[in-house]
Amino acid sequence: MERGMLAVVLEGWGDPEVLQIREVPRPRPGPHEVVVKVRASGVNRADLLQRRGKYPAPPGEPQDIPGLEFSGTVEEVGEEVSLWRVGDRVMGILGGGGYAQYVAVHERAAIRVPAGIPLEDAGAIPEAFLTAYDALFRQAALTEGETVLIHAVGSGVGTAALQLAQNAGARSIGTARAPWKLDRALELGLDVAVEGGEDWVQRVLNATGGEGVDVILDLVGGGYLAGNLKVMATGARQVVVGVPSGSRAELDLRWLMTRRALIRGTVLRGRPVEEKLALSREFEHRVVPLLAARKIRPVLHTALPAHQAAEAHRLLEDNRTFGKVVLLWD
Amino acid sequence: MERGMLAVVLEGWGDPEVLQIREVPRPRPGPHEVVVKVRASGVNRADLLQRRGKYPAPPGEPQDIPGLEFSGTVEEVGEEVSLWRVGDRVMGILGGGGYAQYVAVHERAAIRVPAGIPLEDAGAIPEAFLTAYDALFRQAALTEGETVLIHAVGSGVGTAALQLAQNAGARSIGTARAPWKLDRALELGLDVAVEGGEDWVQRVLNATGGEGVDVILDLVGGGYLAGNLKVMATGARQVVVGVPSGSRAELDLRWLMTRRALIRGTVLRGRPVEEKLALSREFEHRVVPLLAARKIRPVLHTALPAHQAAEAHRLLEDNRTFGKVVLLWD
Repeated sequence: MERGMLAVVLEGWGDPEVLQIREVPRPRPGPHEVVVKVRASGVNRADLLQRRGKYPAPPGEPQDIPGLEFSGTVEEVGEEVSLWRVGDRVMGILGGGGYAQYVAVHERAAIRVPAGIPLEDAGAIPEAFLTAYDALFRQAALTEGETVLIHAVGSGVGTAALQLAQNAGARSIGTARAPWKLDRALELGLDVAVEGGEDWVQRVLNATGGEGVDVILDLVGGGYLAGNLKVMATGARQVVVGVPSGSRAELDLRWLMTRRALIRGTVLRGRPVEEKLALSREFEHRVVPLLAARKIRPVLHTALPAHQAAEAHRLLEDNRTFGKVVLLWD
Repeated sequence: MERGMLAVVLEGWGDPEVLQIREVPRPRPGPHEVVVKVRASGVNRADLLQRRGKYPAPPGEPQDIPGLEFSGTVEEVGEEVSLWRVGDRVMGILGGGGYAQYVAVHERAAIRVPAGIPLEDAGAIPEAFLTAYDALFRQAALTEGETVLIHAVGSGVGTAALQLAQNAGARSIGTARAPWKLDRALELGLDVAVEGGEDWVQRVLNATGGEGVDVILDLVGGGYLAGNLKVMATGARQVVVGVPSGSRAELDLRWLMTRRALIRGTVLRGRPVEEKLALSREFEHRVVPLLAARKIRPVLHTALPAHQAAEAHRLLEDNRTFGKVVLLWD
């Protein structure tokens, strides 16, 4: 007899009200998979796009259940699983289907949640910290002594990135439009806060003695490209992680030559499984110890019951959040 | 008493006729420098820009003598020089002043010319092969089994790049507007020749089974950016080395994200001395042996006497060359 579970399902494409709690089949573990009883499902900006029909899930992933990350406890293990036992506390990223009471993942995609971090908070970790870690260190090769500019520093990825940069001995400059978010970011360890208004370019240049920044973590997109080019130091690396302000902008290739700079795009969801597994293992090895030691911490704006998924989406859409929003399952 | 020498001097900015042979002071070696009696001065597209007043020499370099590369014999060595003796055959890149009978360079900037390569041909090597080597392997990390797209494959850098790519076990696709240049490139080892007309994008996609290319060596610039984005495989790296078709073009950041691709600009001339020295030593270690073994070879379109510098510039301006043009000194 098939067992059911609750999930937040897309009843169509459109406004937040299309998110509805429904009963759906509960996943079974494949030989190398664990089934996790989810405590918290992180909400991401990509979920908002998916809800509007603009970012369909990859083939093979649930098309009607959004959700790219989870935290919870291992409920079942497949025959070949060696890393986990029933009851272990884990978190991880998904191609989809995260807004659900249970998820099945490859055992090497599950990441240990350190003791002392509640599962509610752990749900705010995977997408934000994996994205920031991958972008800053694997894509942009940020090193100690360098300066990183983080746009939308109050976002989930932004709040993760500023902490990871600080821990790595890099200097962080963050932009946000809301002054209260900049205050919160400074409390979290941001070195320089810059209001994302008209003259952010000059302020960033002033903060670097005119030299510019070594790394740009771009969570904003086309609207900031012209400014980003102006604040690039020689050898700068810009990593584009999101483009909510628009995708297209004019690029000056000669400027890129003069600065010997690069712009690279990255995305987690579309990567092949082997890359996601490798990133998850590396993350457990390098970042989870920092979380365990309280050197960095998840930043949770709020946790809402899963049946308030629509409200969670509205919070993100209105840019009223600092850090992450998660949905909780009993 | 100061000794003189001949040089091709900019008598102003403008058409090729501003290039005139004049007598100027001859350089003396600093403690770590060698003075080279030049046999061949390579001509580069950057020299054309400089002649028009659009690409001034960096501070500390001769402002009125163009020329970014040389081949010749060591004539004098500074007190601290240990790598070279008078009479050694060398070549190298310069920040300027290459259109002259003598140049002074740091001893670690001089690169051995292998036996069997005439100095006339060696003058065609440094800028083209250093640029192509640096761009393909150091900037784009091209590896065996990958596919590289080389725009303007008949240029000095293009003809160097296709040979270096072939030697590294990579597949090369080259574009040029003139069919005769594509024929020559195929003779030189190019795998796939594509006319740079309207449908080059589709032809490149066809040649890769729809997958796209791993590396793009862009010697053309803005006019090809939209097409370059379309032919990028997942994880592609585009290196911009020149922008004769224009510098500005629209970039689609989301596309760059989806492909997890990067665009980087590079230039040799503006780099600090320590980077140029390091590149020159690495080049002598890794590329000169390939030249010595005839696995790759300089491609000389023509060698003209130095007093025909104006004619040499016209040849480049009219895109009538395949490979390099050098100026010879007696």
